[in-house]
Amino acid sequence: MSSEKLILVVNDDGLTAPGIRALVEAMLPLGRVVVVAPDKPQSGMGHAITIGSPLRIEKTNTFEHAESYQCSGTPVDCVKLAVDKILHRQPDLCVSGINHGSNSSINVIYSGTMSAAMEATIEGIPAVGFSLLDYTFEADFSAAKHFAAEIADSIMKKGLPPKTVLNVNIPKLSFEDIKGIRVCRQANAKWVEEFYEREDPRGKKYYWLTGQFLNQEHEEDTDEWALANGYISVVPVQFDLTAYHAMAHVSAMMS
Amino acid sequence: MSSEKLILVVNDDGLTAPGIRALVEAMLPLGRVVVVAPDKPQSGMGHAITIGSPLRIEKTNTFEHAESYQCSGTPVDCVKLAVDKILHRQPDLCVSGINHGSNSSINVIYSGTMSAAMEATIEGIPAVGFSLLDYTFEADFSAAKHFAAEIADSIMKKGLPPKTVLNVNIPKLSFEDIKGIRVCRQANAKWVEEFYEREDPRGKKYYWLTGQFLNQEHEEDTDEWALANGYISVVPVQFDLTAYHAMAHVSAMMS
Repeated sequence: MSSEKLILVVNDDGLTAPGIRALVEAMLPLGRVVVVAPDKPQSGMGHAITIGSPLRIEKTNTFEHAESYQCSGTPVDCVKLAVDKILHRQPDLCVSGINHGSNSSINVIYSGTMSAAMEATIEGIPAVGFSLLDYTFEADFSAAKHFAAEIADSIMKKGLPPKTVLNVNIPKLSFEDIKGIRVCRQANAKWVEEFYEREDPRGKKYYWLTGQFLNQEHEEDTDEWALANGYISVVPVQFDLTAYHAMAHVSAMMS
Repeated sequence: MSSEKLILVVNDDGLTAPGIRALVEAMLPLGRVVVVAPDKPQSGMGHAITIGSPLRIEKTNTFEHAESYQCSGTPVDCVKLAVDKILHRQPDLCVSGINHGSNSSINVIYSGTMSAAMEATIEGIPAVGFSLLDYTFEADFSAAKHFAAEIADSIMKKGLPPKTVLNVNIPKLSFEDIKGIRVCRQANAKWVEEFYEREDPRGKKYYWLTGQFLNQEHEEDTDEWALANGYISVVPVQFDLTAYHAMAHVSAMMS
């Protein structure tokens, strides 16, 4: 059994999310599965880490065929704790999700799901984040499970380019209606903020973040196009944020 | 006065940090300054946003010549709230910091300082994050102030390339000992985790995140080299995370 693969499953929605159960089920045929997830929903946590307070880990019995732990920190903390304190070695693969809701285009920046996968990549672990374009708890993960297993298997057999994590988004369609997989670039999109303003019982204002998603380009090589046209989008993502094309301009500014 | 520039100052350490006071002082000669900062330290918050709870804003009288507000959210929330609820328009510049401690190389990913500046850039506001390589509250910001003013002025006069934010790190040196400014790429570095393990009074384990910074390359065009050799490092940073060079490999994997 020494050749058995070790697969770390993480997410940002916590252990009770149907999406992580679907991902565990998809990974079980591929190796030994260990799950480390936040003990509360952590959507939108981006690449946050916990510096100023201590962290807790609790073993749970959430899954019949996979070891599972909940952690008091962020999705990125989960990956760091998993490697150092739970697995005591690098896993062969880290899969994150399946997120309830899109992490395409600019959402990759805010996403706890993708930041967890990116943290694994920074640590040298092949990693991928999966998201289904359905926010509900009742979402149908059957097609997503199928493709998550296929992509995870492909990564373990063929390897990923160095320092590259995959951002996989799956449209809200039945298996039969998904047209295939497209490798894409991140569309240039943003959220246009609109905070709801309310008054509390003592007359003090408070604000809820909301916004409109604004896709600023519609080219066929973008993830937004793929998803809008029935394809699964796969964006290779990197953590070198250097804007190489801007270096000459900035050098001229500084002189 | 209609040509007066409007400058948004943000940070991740909160209004009581000497670094933000230094930045406000550096910006005052350049325009009208409005400060929006978290109401508690938010280091390591990365690009986290607050989705599941409401946000508060309080006006403060922290600075004599600049309007200031504290916000209950993350550094990124501060930028979003500032634009939508405080300024009611796009500022001409957003400056973040001056952070107490380095945000060079991989730290850009975890940094609340840089994520706040990046959020401004996503919203179309020219932006820059400043960090001084000194973690202490007693840090000497005099050289950092000088260069922050110079760089901010240069951005407002010459403009930044689109979708590009500057990550400026300043070595812990006197003004005379700083050799100059170098435009660099992000060095390939990482943190090697090592959680401290402790027991609470009830015998339950808890963990503190700690780690060793490991710089994996020492080329002269990297920010780590510049800082180690007495230069200010300026890395142009982008929010398109697509690993373009990896697309062919990933396309082959998926077929």
